[in-house]
Amino acid sequence: MSVRSILAVLCLAAAFSTPPGLFAQERPPNFVVIFADDLGYGDLAAYGHPTINTPNLDRMAAEGQRWTDFYVAASVCTPSRAGLITGRLPIRSGMMSYKSRVLFPDSTGGLPPSEITIAEVLKQKSYATAAVGKWHLGHLPQYLPTSQGFDSYFGIPYSNDMSRISPAPPRDQLWGEKSKSEYFNVPLMRNEEEIERPAHQPTLTKRYTDEAVKFIRAHREQPFFLYLPHSMVHVPLFRSPEFEGHSRRGLFGDALEEIDWSVGRILDTLEELGLERNTLVVFTSDNGPWLTFDEQGGSAGPLRMGKGSTWEGGMREPGLFWMPGTVKPGVVHGMGATLDLLPTFAAMAGVKAPDDRELDGYDLTPVLRGTGPSPRNEIFYYRGTDVWAARVGRYKAHFKTKSGYLKDPQLDHEPPLLFDLEADPGEKYDVAAEHPEAVAAIRRRVAEHRATVKPVKDQLADRTGR
Amino acid sequence: MSVRSILAVLCLAAAFSTPPGLFAQERPPNFVVIFADDLGYGDLAAYGHPTINTPNLDRMAAEGQRWTDFYVAASVCTPSRAGLITGRLPIRSGMMSYKSRVLFPDSTGGLPPSEITIAEVLKQKSYATAAVGKWHLGHLPQYLPTSQGFDSYFGIPYSNDMSRISPAPPRDQLWGEKSKSEYFNVPLMRNEEEIERPAHQPTLTKRYTDEAVKFIRAHREQPFFLYLPHSMVHVPLFRSPEFEGHSRRGLFGDALEEIDWSVGRILDTLEELGLERNTLVVFTSDNGPWLTFDEQGGSAGPLRMGKGSTWEGGMREPGLFWMPGTVKPGVVHGMGATLDLLPTFAAMAGVKAPDDRELDGYDLTPVLRGTGPSPRNEIFYYRGTDVWAARVGRYKAHFKTKSGYLKDPQLDHEPPLLFDLEADPGEKYDVAAEHPEAVAAIRRRVAEHRATVKPVKDQLADRTGR
Repeated sequence: MSVRSILAVLCLAAAFSTPPGLFAQERPPNFVVIFADDLGYGDLAAYGHPTINTPNLDRMAAEGQRWTDFYVAASVCTPSRAGLITGRLPIRSGMMSYKSRVLFPDSTGGLPPSEITIAEVLKQKSYATAAVGKWHLGHLPQYLPTSQGFDSYFGIPYSNDMSRISPAPPRDQLWGEKSKSEYFNVPLMRNEEEIERPAHQPTLTKRYTDEAVKFIRAHREQPFFLYLPHSMVHVPLFRSPEFEGHSRRGLFGDALEEIDWSVGRILDTLEELGLERNTLVVFTSDNGPWLTFDEQGGSAGPLRMGKGSTWEGGMREPGLFWMPGTVKPGVVHGMGATLDLLPTFAAMAGVKAPDDRELDGYDLTPVLRGTGPSPRNEIFYYRGTDVWAARVGRYKAHFKTKSGYLKDPQLDHEPPLLFDLEADPGEKYDVAAEHPEAVAAIRRRVAEHRATVKPVKDQLADRTGR
Repeated sequence: MSVRSILAVLCLAAAFSTPPGLFAQERPPNFVVIFADDLGYGDLAAYGHPTINTPNLDRMAAEGQRWTDFYVAASVCTPSRAGLITGRLPIRSGMMSYKSRVLFPDSTGGLPPSEITIAEVLKQKSYATAAVGKWHLGHLPQYLPTSQGFDSYFGIPYSNDMSRISPAPPRDQLWGEKSKSEYFNVPLMRNEEEIERPAHQPTLTKRYTDEAVKFIRAHREQPFFLYLPHSMVHVPLFRSPEFEGHSRRGLFGDALEEIDWSVGRILDTLEELGLERNTLVVFTSDNGPWLTFDEQGGSAGPLRMGKGSTWEGGMREPGLFWMPGTVKPGVVHGMGATLDLLPTFAAMAGVKAPDDRELDGYDLTPVLRGTGPSPRNEIFYYRGTDVWAARVGRYKAHFKTKSGYLKDPQLDHEPPLLFDLEADPGEKYDVAAEHPEAVAAIRRRVAEHRATVKPVKDQLADRTGR
């Protein structure tokens, strides 16, 4: 190939922002995981919300894949994140417990360093790795992202509603339009250092985005993994001044539309650098909407209940996959889960997933490429250390239920409730009597699964009380 | 212009299916209104349904406009249709009543011939006009489509669940998978003649589609108006053999996916004939989902209640507008209504809308072309002859409510309930106490509106009892 023809290829690449195939072949793909907090299944325009505008996420949906049956590993924050980052149900790492549902500022546990994260898996091929945003997998040094395979970390180590000042302001001050960053003494960290306390929350989405863009720009020549778990739209809701009154949906919509803006900046940056055909961007959230906060919580759309519950609204989330030229555009009804990201990324990067332990994820690349159906056919809905519900194929059985509202009672179901999630995605019509074979199949699958779960130290149990 | 250059233009037109501007200017646009029955706000994939596949309607949404705040004129069939076809609230034509909510096979009334329909308006420019599908605006000869400005009619004159055989089969036979066309002695008509009785319902969607395509083909050289009100997805649900088991959503999904297939045939035909840039296609439904039928009813998605109620789920519908090159693609949050079709079509066709009577519609062309906001700022939610609720801007006041379930009580609200439909599209949080000015503004607007309504003969009251 002459210098002139090489130049011609490069110019073409620049003109169309399309690196020619030979570059794409040589370099393993980049991965960007954008993870919202407490976002409901029904909160994006692409999932039917009537008043929230999410043009950039809609663009991901239109140019990529919009999954209708995409699940998280737990209905609350800490265990959901543990599942995503390890590809293992949080019960296996001790990150799921009845004693405490998530980590608190006085917790002494965290994701054990012996767990292997996506970042560590990709380090086999020298990926640059960054975590930007809310971590919530342990805030002591040995649990921070920089101890878990990430080269760098910028963000808050636990939820933005924690470390409340004492005495706390009255409820109408603490939440909503009147809330202030100062009510929550949450640290902002760079790597292992606190750099701001309390973190100034209204500018977090913007600052996370700047960090993310800077990281992408710095690694245009090297494969990278960017994990970008936003603090929003978890209450207390904040947005930067440019987004005040931005949304018809009010404060919640403002905060979400700023996340959408952030997504747009990521996509634009990838395109500007000519990396969009070599970067898989994934968008989802950690669990369903926090319904107890009324208008400040999101919407599960047609699904039942929200955050904290094992009804669909608690654990089924928007799931968007974007990688022009690789991800075949369309709506996907096959099942997927955040648990599947680790094996999928490993397959795409050409590295090994851990084989010395139980993994709960599947390689979704056939679905992403449009070459085959989803290998996933089941979902386990844990609460604490028990399987409260399980889905196999179209049917979901509930052995125990609770609404997600603290005051509501826990109910045991024997025989279990059974719902046909394809005909009845809202879980309204119990069909256990009509389909005993489905109930039996689910019981068998749960028993098989339980046999693979070994007791481990409960990482959420220990708190200093200070 | 030489013969050669004219030929060149024609060849270009054929190549790109794009008639050059001068033709578009000379010929007024065609109009196709595809009207589903009892479809819910949340039933299309483009509006967030998790398991129903509507690729052709999604295509209309992606290439055209998807309206989030599009309303019908009433929450049940007959008055909703009267509103669409006349651009007037059905209270003005006597098509709204407390005595009977719709026309029945023993009703003697119908849409008065003195009313001016969209078909009659377009006849000023010699449009070819056809009604294909369910009419339900009077089945006596003087009320049929051929007496209301339509050149031809093919379809059933009232709902597909009427004229039940006696004694009726038990409920589990009458509805659902076990239902049969023969249980409903509904006539199929061509113009004023019964041509089949009972109409063979499983093939109706297919036969309507064939008629519609034939009509479009026959009028490729003349402006046309096609009104295509499907019988589906009103219970009893039927679909042709090709659509049995087509949908994950079951029977309801099968019937809806057949309507989507029908939409695809219409769009494909327009493109094949090179008419797609000169034809406005509108898709919506007559009212919300019939929730009392459980899985056989649709879903209002995030909206409250369904058919028969003045909650949003009863009267807000999917609204899709498609006309490549004219309709600016995007999501529209401005208010629109089926009442607006008549003035909009009149404006686009360059003909006068009736000026000797009250019209309740607005010309939506600025929104369709992307040149301005919606001129509509209010919605009146009638039940019988009363305004039960009204929306002005973002606020909606309920003066009376009823769920849509027959057994539920009617409630009077003084002061009215007030909902902010932008922040709270699900009508969950009453904000009347916080916004007395909004309540007052809505009361004034309702009073102004009431002053324009004159008493007319009740067309729904008279029934022979036979």
